Amino acid sequence: MNGYVSDAVVRRLPGYYRHLRELEENGVVQISSQELGERMSLTPSQIRQDINCFGGFGRQGYGYPVHELKEHIGEILGLNRKHRMAIIGAGRIGNAVSRYPSFRREGFETVAMFDSDPALMTEEDDGIGIYDISRLEELLPEMDISIAVLAVPATAAQKTADRLYACGVRAIWNFAPVDLQHPADMEVVNVHMSDTLHILSYRMAHPDADRK
Amino acid sequence: MNGYVSDAVVRRLPGYYRHLRELEENGVVQISSQELGERMSLTPSQIRQDINCFGGFGRQGYGYPVHELKEHIGEILGLNRKHRMAIIGAGRIGNAVSRYPSFRREGFETVAMFDSDPALMTEEDDGIGIYDISRLEELLPEMDISIAVLAVPATAAQKTADRLYACGVRAIWNFAPVDLQHPADMEVVNVHMSDTLHILSYRMAHPDADRK
Repeated sequence: MNGYVSDAVVRRLPGYYRHLRELEENGVVQISSQELGERMSLTPSQIRQDINCFGGFGRQGYGYPVHELKEHIGEILGLNRKHRMAIIGAGRIGNAVSRYPSFRREGFETVAMFDSDPALMTEEDDGIGIYDISRLEELLPEMDISIAVLAVPATAAQKTADRLYACGVRAIWNFAPVDLQHPADMEVVNVHMSDTLHILSYRMAHPDADRK
Repeated sequence: MNGYVSDAVVRRLPGYYRHLRELEENGVVQISSQELGERMSLTPSQIRQDINCFGGFGRQGYGYPVHELKEHIGEILGLNRKHRMAIIGAGRIGNAVSRYPSFRREGFETVAMFDSDPALMTEEDDGIGIYDISRLEELLPEMDISIAVLAVPATAAQKTADRLYACGVRAIWNFAPVDLQHPADMEVVNVHMSDTLHILSYRMAHPDADRK
């Protein structure tokens, strides 16, 4: 990358990756900033600015090479790495995540689940063991986990995050509706399920709003 | 609102609503564009620009009134309306959505689920009936549904969306990893589960990246 990438650009990267992957799957080889902008609801100049950040893809008049750009953005996103994930909380959300088909393909492998409910302990789900959360400190350090998926109730989230940090976990994908306090050397990204529902609600309330 | 609100601002509205609600719950009465910007990873001038779009809240030097701004953004988002939702697909994601505690509080009420798996038909889950998807055309029109949550496998998504449209549904919250084709008078908002995971992956790959 050409140095500094703003957080706003970073937030758009997964969308670029997704659209470019779809284009590639549909056999598209080149795409203009105009066409990509229309797909992504961004202006062509915004697209050009963003892609200039990544370096080496600005070929005015020729469009961008879809495969190369997708691969490059995938690398920037770290998708060329492998990640071993543990899911904390084997309820509905935890189970939905463990089965999501694309994660494994992208290098995110769920290797274990933990839960406090003894009724779940005997399950072996697609070969993924479900362990008692009381064994977290005993088992997790041996598992070489790089990402913990936090899918516990809100009331248990902070305490569980603290335990994960103590076990050496430095990245949490947080589904609990809580802003976690955490040391600077732990990354936390929150999933806000309701945000897209609110966007839908907005569009229903403003059916004639322009889309730009 | 003061006329046109860009799609970029609309995409930020749920974040404003979420942060303002948290501030209100924490007893904060006023907040400056500087402080709100720090919470939301936006510049103070971006915050002022956005809030100017909504009209009537630009009080330089005094900060914004948290409760009033939250209520106003909630109205813009249509959260003052009630929505009856049907969940199509009673698997893990469908069930996770049906139990998500905040939706009902915000006026989104799940009234029925549909699935093609006969094993699920006898379940009554929190009083929410699960019906055979073959009965969609018979039952849905009577249910006064305004939003369908689409949580079926990718291969069934387009056909199910077409059936929902034929039943009069004009808004889909889509969890299937598919870009749906739909008439202009149907709103579709897609949930991309992996986007936030990719952001986490980015941060792990660039631990020293600035946050702006």
